[in-house]
Amino acid sequence: MHDQPLLDKLRSRLAHQLDPVLYSGKGMSPLNIAIAVVILAGILLAIIQTEPSIRQGRESWFRATELTLGSLFLLEYLARLWTCIENDSVKSRVQHFFSFFALADLLAILVAFSLYLGNGGVILRLVLLIRVVRLARLGRFSTALECIAEAVRSRTYELLVSAIFGVIILLFAATCLYLVEGDIQPEAFGSIPRATWWAVATLTTVGYGDVYPITVLGRILAGITAVTGICMIAVPTGILASAFSDAIKEAKEKHRRLPKVLDKEL
Amino acid sequence: MHDQPLLDKLRSRLAHQLDPVLYSGKGMSPLNIAIAVVILAGILLAIIQTEPSIRQGRESWFRATELTLGSLFLLEYLARLWTCIENDSVKSRVQHFFSFFALADLLAILVAFSLYLGNGGVILRLVLLIRVVRLARLGRFSTALECIAEAVRSRTYELLVSAIFGVIILLFAATCLYLVEGDIQPEAFGSIPRATWWAVATLTTVGYGDVYPITVLGRILAGITAVTGICMIAVPTGILASAFSDAIKEAKEKHRRLPKVLDKEL
Amino acid sequence: MHDQPLLDKLRSRLAHQLDPVLYSGKGMSPLNIAIAVVILAGILLAIIQTEPSIRQGRESWFRATELTLGSLFLLEYLARLWTCIENDSVKSRVQHFFSFFALADLLAILVAFSLYLGNGGVILRLVLLIRVVRLARLGRFSTALECIAEAVRSRTYELLVSAIFGVIILLFAATCLYLVEGDIQPEAFGSIPRATWWAVATLTTVGYGDVYPITVLGRILAGITAVTGICMIAVPTGILASAFSDAIKEAKEKHRRLPKVLDKEL
Amino acid sequence: MHDQPLLDKLRSRLAHQLDPVLYSGKGMSPLNIAIAVVILAGILLAIIQTEPSIRQGRESWFRATELTLGSLFLLEYLARLWTCIENDSVKSRVQHFFSFFALADLLAILVAFSLYLGNGGVILRLVLLIRVVRLARLGRFSTALECIAEAVRSRTYELLVSAIFGVIILLFAATCLYLVEGDIQPEAFGSIPRATWWAVATLTTVGYGDVYPITVLGRILAGITAVTGICMIAVPTGILASAFSDAIKEAKEKHRRLPKVLDKEL
Repeated sequence: MHDQPLLDKLRSRLAHQLDPVLYSGKGMSPLNIAIAVVILAGILLAIIQTEPSIRQGRESWFRATELTLGSLFLLEYLARLWTCIENDSVKSRVQHFFSFFALADLLAILVAFSLYLGNGGVILRLVLLIRVVRLARLGRFSTALECIAEAVRSRTYELLVSAIFGVIILLFAATCLYLVEGDIQPEAFGSIPRATWWAVATLTTVGYGDVYPITVLGRILAGITAVTGICMIAVPTGILASAFSDAIKEAKEKHRRLPKVLDKEL
Repeated sequence: MHDQPLLDKLRSRLAHQLDPVLYSGKGMSPLNIAIAVVILAGILLAIIQTEPSIRQGRESWFRATELTLGSLFLLEYLARLWTCIENDSVKSRVQHFFSFFALADLLAILVAFSLYLGNGGVILRLVLLIRVVRLARLGRFSTALECIAEAVRSRTYELLVSAIFGVIILLFAATCLYLVEGDIQPEAFGSIPRATWWAVATLTTVGYGDVYPITVLGRILAGITAVTGICMIAVPTGILASAFSDAIKEAKEKHRRLPKVLDKEL
Repeated sequence: MHDQPLLDKLRSRLAHQLDPVLYSGKGMSPLNIAIAVVILAGILLAIIQTEPSIRQGRESWFRATELTLGSLFLLEYLARLWTCIENDSVKSRVQHFFSFFALADLLAILVAFSLYLGNGGVILRLVLLIRVVRLARLGRFSTALECIAEAVRSRTYELLVSAIFGVIILLFAATCLYLVEGDIQPEAFGSIPRATWWAVATLTTVGYGDVYPITVLGRILAGITAVTGICMIAVPTGILASAFSDAIKEAKEKHRRLPKVLDKEL
Repeated sequence: MHDQPLLDKLRSRLAHQLDPVLYSGKGMSPLNIAIAVVILAGILLAIIQTEPSIRQGRESWFRATELTLGSLFLLEYLARLWTCIENDSVKSRVQHFFSFFALADLLAILVAFSLYLGNGGVILRLVLLIRVVRLARLGRFSTALECIAEAVRSRTYELLVSAIFGVIILLFAATCLYLVEGDIQPEAFGSIPRATWWAVATLTTVGYGDVYPITVLGRILAGITAVTGICMIAVPTGILASAFSDAIKEAKEKHRRLPKVLDKEL
């Protein structure tokens, strides 16, 4: 039955619409755009229905929408499983089935159908976001994503070293304030793990204001910590700034050398 | 009557004062500077009179000032409508009438005269700010604005990709804290949309302090979110830093090649 | 009497110690270092004695120290007035008297002697800081300061444009929240000037937490404002990063071309 | 006895495992990795046991673990003292004994054994972190660390100048708010040192929210301070961004010129 030329033609057409690699046009194919919209709507729905004031009285409506979305995802999943062999890089349907994204798709369908899962289903639904990224990946953002990834990758060591210094400073600041204010504010600084909460809020300059030193020495140390925090933010920013500068320069140079290939891609 | 040479001369002179393109001098023309001052005074007035303690007892004074400003804007509007045909790029008065800035001018006049509009008039008055930007645009800031615009435009993809990652991280952080603290602090983390308010305040390092986690796991997740927020700030900063570096380098190179044209402009 | 060779020799020696331009050694002269230490001690003293818990019971001690410092500054002032004519760039003692720094010195002496000025004297005392900067200026930090000043100066237009955009966004955010939350929280958002306080705290990511929106729409707008604030911070950071890169590159190139002059300076 | 070839061979082998300079492999030696893990476990233990809710009822367990760790550190210390002479740069055991890191090791052992030291032992335990950095230093992060250190060192003057400006602005902002709100909020702004606490929190954009101005003038000054704070953060970020760009460029150039030496190191 699979040898029928009509079905083969249909499968080939569908594969070119579903698989971003096979799609010859620019950006995403119309079908993939529609799927992305459905996925985004599903994520929005999943987020909104956690709010009790919105869910109340609309449970059946949310349930029906979930079922509809689940059916659409199931259809798409089966279509991908059917057409995947058109892509030469996929050797068999079994290989496709065990690929990361196929399993993520399967998970998304299970989530959509598990209406009675309650809150636990929410985090699983975030898996859907990965699918959107996958769809977008080979489309319009590929060069931009590669630049950012390249910039971060080329400076992994520098960023890691500054992260290690960050942890050392964090623990040092927390220990200082634990020693200075541990007896005065036992609830906030009574142990190093507790003081670390304050140290994180200060070093990242978030400053919730739920915990802050009240003694003179504690405030001096907090001031030094806050200033150190700014320097700690400046270091990775500076590293990434120079990394981006290099990554984009290289991307441009490549573009100049291979204008035809990249023109098509961009 | 329009063919009289005296009126033509007057119109030409007025056009050269009103239209920044026709103005031969450096920066803004004296008339446009005066108009800009009036516009800024009008905006300041609009802002100040929303404060009840200032408005009280001075309602008639504010009303009179509004009327005066409205009359001045009407005069300017009519003058622009009369002189617009001097600019070769404007084909007819009708075309000028439907241009974005002419409609903004008309709106500003309507706002000034609608004394009884109340608060609703305030946001309309911000339209006036667009006019100031327009006046300044072709004057002294043109090169600087072009550099900034060029820098942002040339990295649109990279900024968009980092924005998408930002949204994903935002929703992920909100979902995590909704799952961890949703039952303990239902008012603050009882749903993902509610937890998103906390996530925005943390990722942007604003940290109002009205909402913050109180459990150990919640605080660990909040700490990771705050650190991620800093990295998320570092990425666009790094992208823009390299973009500015390129934009200004190019502007300088252009300057070297075409020194006469730009010297006049600068 | 001034023609006596002994006095002339003394004046010349003193001038070489007091005037950073005439001083032939590296950095600051020993006398200027001593003066800088006295100035810094004076500033520290001025700051500390504003604290009631420290001042109480030590009024006479603080008064005596102030008088001593005042006498030292008077001596220095007279010494500078006497020796200033040794510097060729100073034409006469009268010209020196009316120079910015000489007037600042005179002010500092008046402050030190005005023991009963109370709090008003504090801000005047900050004038002393300018003197320290002046002393340091021609010494060790000259190249670094020039690099920073050059970087800021070369991008004045870009920074000004981003500042103007900042003000527009600030007023826009304040107006939005005034319209949305003005009726619900009249104390915090009851007028645009009041809402501006919130907008400043949010756009700069300070986030005191004394004022924050409580409605859904207000929080969405606040989130957008916070994200915009980060972008607004990224723009000047990016501009300055590329400016520093250029300024330091130029300083190095100059160094290569004129190695002898700068080696002495560095 | 030391001349026995078996002992010599053992000592040589142990030295190559303990001393990162002698270790011929890439990264850290297996023994040093094990030691690093034990050190990290010891630090984690020291931090956790400050929390009363965790320590309670587990005192004997913590004490036993401390003793075990102390014994391991003592063993390592003696092993290092025995093998140190294998490294040609170490002239004698006495010299090694008085080196910074050997004394830090000795301190760490004393800390581990001083079970009854109480809280005071915590800060001493942070000395252990230095050891981890030392172990890691000559291993994988050496190039990255050198880049960061080189970037900071090459801009020491610029960073110092911006720090001095930062202190001047800090004191200026504190003085302004002391004068404006000192009488209204004596607890928060009653003296310059007290107002400095607010100024630090605002300039670093931490914004705890425990102290904030309530008058109109105070809020205007606070807004200016917050904006100045952002500029103050942008300056060192910009300096470091350009410094990293240069440091990494130079590291790459060196790499090109001396490919063999660095390939081994990287």
